[in-house]
Amino acid sequence: MDVDEKATLFEGYELKLNSYDLGVDIELADAIERLRFEYPQVKVILLRSAKPRVFCAGANIRMLAGATHAHKVNFCKFTNETRNGMEDASETSGLYTICVINGTAAGGGYELALAADHIMLIDDGASAVSLPELPLLAVLPGTGGLTRVTDKRKVRRDRADVFCTTEEGVKGKRAVDWRLVDEVVSASRLEEAVAKRAREFAARSQRPRSGKGIVLAPLKRERSADAVEYSTISVEFQRAARRATITLRGPDSPPPASAEAMVELGAQFWPLRLARELDDAILDIRANEFDVAAIVFKSSGDPAQVLAYDEFLHAHKDHWLAREISGFWKRALKRVDLTSRSLVTLVEPGSCFAGTLAELVFASDRSYMLIGQRDGDNKPPATFALAEVNFGAYPMPNGISRLASRFLADPAALDRARGAIGEMLDAEAAEKLGLVTFALDDIDWEDEIRVFLEERASFSADALTGLANLRFGGPETMESKICARLSAWQNWIFQRPNAVGEEGALKRYGTGQKPAFDTRRV
Amino acid sequence: MDVDEKATLFEGYELKLNSYDLGVDIELADAIERLRFEYPQVKVILLRSAKPRVFCAGANIRMLAGATHAHKVNFCKFTNETRNGMEDASETSGLYTICVINGTAAGGGYELALAADHIMLIDDGASAVSLPELPLLAVLPGTGGLTRVTDKRKVRRDRADVFCTTEEGVKGKRAVDWRLVDEVVSASRLEEAVAKRAREFAARSQRPRSGKGIVLAPLKRERSADAVEYSTISVEFQRAARRATITLRGPDSPPPASAEAMVELGAQFWPLRLARELDDAILDIRANEFDVAAIVFKSSGDPAQVLAYDEFLHAHKDHWLAREISGFWKRALKRVDLTSRSLVTLVEPGSCFAGTLAELVFASDRSYMLIGQRDGDNKPPATFALAEVNFGAYPMPNGISRLASRFLADPAALDRARGAIGEMLDAEAAEKLGLVTFALDDIDWEDEIRVFLEERASFSADALTGLANLRFGGPETMESKICARLSAWQNWIFQRPNAVGEEGALKRYGTGQKPAFDTRRV
Repeated sequence: MDVDEKATLFEGYELKLNSYDLGVDIELADAIERLRFEYPQVKVILLRSAKPRVFCAGANIRMLAGATHAHKVNFCKFTNETRNGMEDASETSGLYTICVINGTAAGGGYELALAADHIMLIDDGASAVSLPELPLLAVLPGTGGLTRVTDKRKVRRDRADVFCTTEEGVKGKRAVDWRLVDEVVSASRLEEAVAKRAREFAARSQRPRSGKGIVLAPLKRERSADAVEYSTISVEFQRAARRATITLRGPDSPPPASAEAMVELGAQFWPLRLARELDDAILDIRANEFDVAAIVFKSSGDPAQVLAYDEFLHAHKDHWLAREISGFWKRALKRVDLTSRSLVTLVEPGSCFAGTLAELVFASDRSYMLIGQRDGDNKPPATFALAEVNFGAYPMPNGISRLASRFLADPAALDRARGAIGEMLDAEAAEKLGLVTFALDDIDWEDEIRVFLEERASFSADALTGLANLRFGGPETMESKICARLSAWQNWIFQRPNAVGEEGALKRYGTGQKPAFDTRRV
Repeated sequence: MDVDEKATLFEGYELKLNSYDLGVDIELADAIERLRFEYPQVKVILLRSAKPRVFCAGANIRMLAGATHAHKVNFCKFTNETRNGMEDASETSGLYTICVINGTAAGGGYELALAADHIMLIDDGASAVSLPELPLLAVLPGTGGLTRVTDKRKVRRDRADVFCTTEEGVKGKRAVDWRLVDEVVSASRLEEAVAKRAREFAARSQRPRSGKGIVLAPLKRERSADAVEYSTISVEFQRAARRATITLRGPDSPPPASAEAMVELGAQFWPLRLARELDDAILDIRANEFDVAAIVFKSSGDPAQVLAYDEFLHAHKDHWLAREISGFWKRALKRVDLTSRSLVTLVEPGSCFAGTLAELVFASDRSYMLIGQRDGDNKPPATFALAEVNFGAYPMPNGISRLASRFLADPAALDRARGAIGEMLDAEAAEKLGLVTFALDDIDWEDEIRVFLEERASFSADALTGLANLRFGGPETMESKICARLSAWQNWIFQRPNAVGEEGALKRYGTGQKPAFDTRRV
């Protein structure tokens, strides 16, 4: 990947998409992460199609028609996370996206455009934006489309109704009047107008004027039959028990002496390495391990060292790389929140759930902490510790911290937790502060955990997926609306014969045969 | 229905439920409406089971196992509306509910308890509250249960996870510590404690100390093959076109001279009569007319008279009956918002969409207004008018007015609309203010409407149901979370073989056979 020559104009980068499908999403997610880390001076991404009229959901439709339900759901979730990531790049990194539509952006293509900061549409009497999912495929623009139309673009609801039911979409002045795009530009003025907007956005960015990026080298992982081994993480599959155990390892050396030394370490810097490996492990389980009912988080290491890294990042919070690493953790932890398996953390002797790693405890549906040491084991008793990062650095999709979500009923409990920042808490203290679900002694531990995990594996997978609603109490954001509400409707529609049945619209699309619908409404 | 003798103590009324099912919901909804209107001096409802241990979802399970998908969805929606109505009675009428659990409240029974202002549990070592839906039936506590646990009771999410997966539930002190009930009381102290709480709630109520209620006489309706005729509403079914047209008639006389005269009119008072009939017509279509894709609203009458009634109610807004009528409209309009058919309003010559009735225009997915008069017709041109009630008296489930939802992008447009209160607006003026979707002249009218309605009838019913997400942009409330998010998850789960398949938990419940699950997770 090279920064385009237009970099001289506005430190920009041009991403050209050939057509829109899951492959593109993976490439796009990768490209954006790399721009964040490898090219800190890039401030604006131009998103446009390689050829006019292919910025659409063609491949997407074929994929959806043929894919399993699991694949569709994973596709939609990853796609949502990528688009949320683009908005996050804008909001927290000052890396803006301008979408240039020099043809027609239909379906998934326009949903992607909606994630940009600014949408430009060529005014040639033909180019349009459209969401033809409903009239054409009997499904929703369900990867954020509807929600971004109402909550980001704030399109008037009756106009949104017209737009979402009009196969050919909306073009020209009406597209601007209805807030579907930000501007329409004639073909002859397009490049000039794009450059002007790009310069405007670049001028608002806080990204460094110049700066040496770091290389996000591909992750190394060794896969065996029942395990995946990373440099800071081990994943073990107990497939008969429908369980995956992820053990995170704390740092084996203190933080570097300076921000420059952190840049020098690059992708080897422990917090970044761990975040990338955790993210990869979660995506691997989502996509490849459908029979895993519960993910068990464990850790090993020195909690004081983990806190030292948190303090290091906090001390350098205005450095671009520290900011990007913190942002990566934020996104990786949101991916954990949105992973629809039961999540449990076991805080055991020798573990290091402190600061950033304590977020996994709060992201879990339940946590158990062992009181004291184990018989015949000399590992130090489990210790839990909080840091400043637990109070806002890593908001959940609902916009507030995991601890604030946890203590919705009781702001005083949140204050008590804040008062304990930096303290090394034993199991009883952590339980008393409400930080873990249960503190158990060695006598009860094994049986309690075994019964819990067996029970979890025996419940209906679908009902447990819905139970994840318990994770998101309190406020709502556009992001939580997309992830928790729109996705639920789309999942429902993806089950219905009108979409996926033999005579449904998804199956019949492109065959020349009209779909046959069960017309009953409720 | 007679007010219980305990009325002397705390102006209370005791509702005893035999078991919990849809029949009870209908009775409960009816009882609460009647208490609001017929017994304005009642301030506290005691909700308790007729016999210990039957305050549960027994009937409910049998119904769910046997019911069609349509019936299940309608049941859940009506149930949600009833519970939201109980909370509304507390919030806006000062009619509080205390739930007394003198046995075990399980499943739907506890979900109902969650709608109360105060939950008391007898402390006998056995009585408990529980949500066993997930472990027992492989579905969710989906009629508000999960959301009220997290967002109303604000139960810590890991405790909520334990609670919702523990079939036998939680009792005694832990039920209080975990915020699942407000207090536990020993059997010997129960009646005394209930009376004390009831007096406390009664003291907070603004309901009149005494007052003559009005009688909510059963509605009269005449049903023929293709129509239902009420006193202020006509419903016509064009079943081949998958359409129902509801025509609302304006008042045929000016408002009464005083609040006393309004009480004298009682259920015959035009605004109340119309609201009750509209509510009934909507419920009838939901439950009995599954093939109706679109509901078309029309009206006939004098818009100035409609405004006069709005002004009358506003002038008497502190009178208990005016407050109850306004509240009834608020709930009826929310029922329209939550009705998953396409909604369209046609504003034609001779119509009276003004003030309260204009809310139907804003509740519609689209609206069309005719410019001028029709050829050969001497009805006055369509006139549209706003009143103060359009700016907050009837919040949507998302907590803001339909106009505020409409103009999310543009507060100035909301101000311009407010500036037009009381003006008689023609089609072009209404369109310019953004109040209707399209103003059309007589030449285009017929074709445009015909094509739109035909198209609507041809789309997938499921996708259109999901498209209703466009109705609820902007903020979220507990109510909108229940209606738009939790319901979507429950609908999805109700489609899944793990719940409803031949080997699913709902089908096998009570048979002695364990359900067989497809264990795959996504």
